[in-house]
Amino acid sequence: MATPITSTANERVKQIRALRLRKERERSGLCYVEGIRAVGEAVQTSAEVETLVVAPALLTSDFARALVERAAAEGVAALEVTPAVFASLSEREGPQGLAAVVRQRWARLEDVRVAPGECWLALDAIADPGNLGTIVRTCDAAGAAGLVLLGGSTDPYDPAAVRASMGAVFGLRLARASWDAFVAWAQEDGVRLVGTSARDGEHYREADFGERTVLLLGSEREGLSAEQRAACDVLVSIPMRGRASSLNLAVAAGVLLYEALERRERRT
Amino acid sequence: MATPITSTANERVKQIRALRLRKERERSGLCYVEGIRAVGEAVQTSAEVETLVVAPALLTSDFARALVERAAAEGVAALEVTPAVFASLSEREGPQGLAAVVRQRWARLEDVRVAPGECWLALDAIADPGNLGTIVRTCDAAGAAGLVLLGGSTDPYDPAAVRASMGAVFGLRLARASWDAFVAWAQEDGVRLVGTSARDGEHYREADFGERTVLLLGSEREGLSAEQRAACDVLVSIPMRGRASSLNLAVAAGVLLYEALERRERRT
Repeated sequence: MATPITSTANERVKQIRALRLRKERERSGLCYVEGIRAVGEAVQTSAEVETLVVAPALLTSDFARALVERAAAEGVAALEVTPAVFASLSEREGPQGLAAVVRQRWARLEDVRVAPGECWLALDAIADPGNLGTIVRTCDAAGAAGLVLLGGSTDPYDPAAVRASMGAVFGLRLARASWDAFVAWAQEDGVRLVGTSARDGEHYREADFGERTVLLLGSEREGLSAEQRAACDVLVSIPMRGRASSLNLAVAAGVLLYEALERRERRT
Repeated sequence: MATPITSTANERVKQIRALRLRKERERSGLCYVEGIRAVGEAVQTSAEVETLVVAPALLTSDFARALVERAAAEGVAALEVTPAVFASLSEREGPQGLAAVVRQRWARLEDVRVAPGECWLALDAIADPGNLGTIVRTCDAAGAAGLVLLGGSTDPYDPAAVRASMGAVFGLRLARASWDAFVAWAQEDGVRLVGTSARDGEHYREADFGERTVLLLGSEREGLSAEQRAACDVLVSIPMRGRASSLNLAVAAGVLLYEALERRERRT
């Protein structure tokens, strides 16, 4: 390969660094992925890896070296940089010497059909990227079919979200939509829109999730609005047995996604 | 009240700032709590609030003012400070002008009995304070009786943990123990130690949790060691249907704590 880039002011390096900003991610349709595990997910799934960023002097893991070789064999461009340049791109302590620029992938909601036996998760106005990444990871683990982001939700391609997802963001179907477009989509015959309510929903273990399920969770602070609740086919509540009035959003999503999985596996 | 303290180098202010450090929290047995909600939990539960830290110029919420009055009526000392001094204590952006120094409370594990119908959670070597705080919040919500911290676990009285717990740390019974002391405790007749395993445990919905349950989860990275697994009465697994090999620890704890709650409520 070529001589490693030594300047943090190199144009290509500056372009990549700009991917920290959501505006630049939206403009380019790209994202920046750090860490061997998440880069590994990107390379091993069908994600479109545009460039691998490699600091050879930092790359000590055999798994990481094999990833670099595999990507090279597949024709992925590699940008070699010095440890100092790598650190200037990195938001992590102890950078592992491997990162990637990956093309974002979004499904068009109007092209998505909720198939029988599928569960989708929809989130409105989620604010915290780490929470969102944890939820993406949980969607993957609980076999959810995909995730729809509504309203002013944070970006699943934010570096903190990608990291918290452990790279699962590259394997999950993602869509985003306005509330109106989402409601029109979820009103399709046979799709059951299951909303959450802090107190006055049916017990989540007893409510009917239907055979084609869309779970809808509100924001960390506000939950669902009255209009959103009214659009749901059923509202469910998770019991609160202590002083707390709510769960962390990722924990609530996990409890409901695993209930939905249990329903599907019990049925088959 | 007295004139607000204007110097960030004031001795009392320096003592309080030192509570950011675990060493100082351990030495003093105190912790520092920020935010109206968490301070509210401390005041409204039986936590021993040593000092309220108030920046009157920042205090805009009626709820916060009522908390200050209630604490004053109960004889809690108040330290008035300027916004600049408050900001020097605060790890949050947008400080709300109310914080507290609260005495930590730890149960001695040897004094704890797991009563029939109770579920305790034990965590080994949990590293992330935010994750720990989220788990404390979930314990409260799911009606767990308490939390035992093993090995080199992070501190539930770390400001980030207190914040993520939404103050639930002041209502939950907490204990800490060495692994050996914990095993001796959990071997009491009738207590069922339910460990977690990534792949080869019983399905968590099918395994026997017993009538007196102690759930044991390992660290974020390592899970349980072979020795720890061998000490358990049963190992359970949460299904992993995607590419991910594990869940976020707080999500896994949530799924299991709500399963344990369901068992208890189904029985009664």
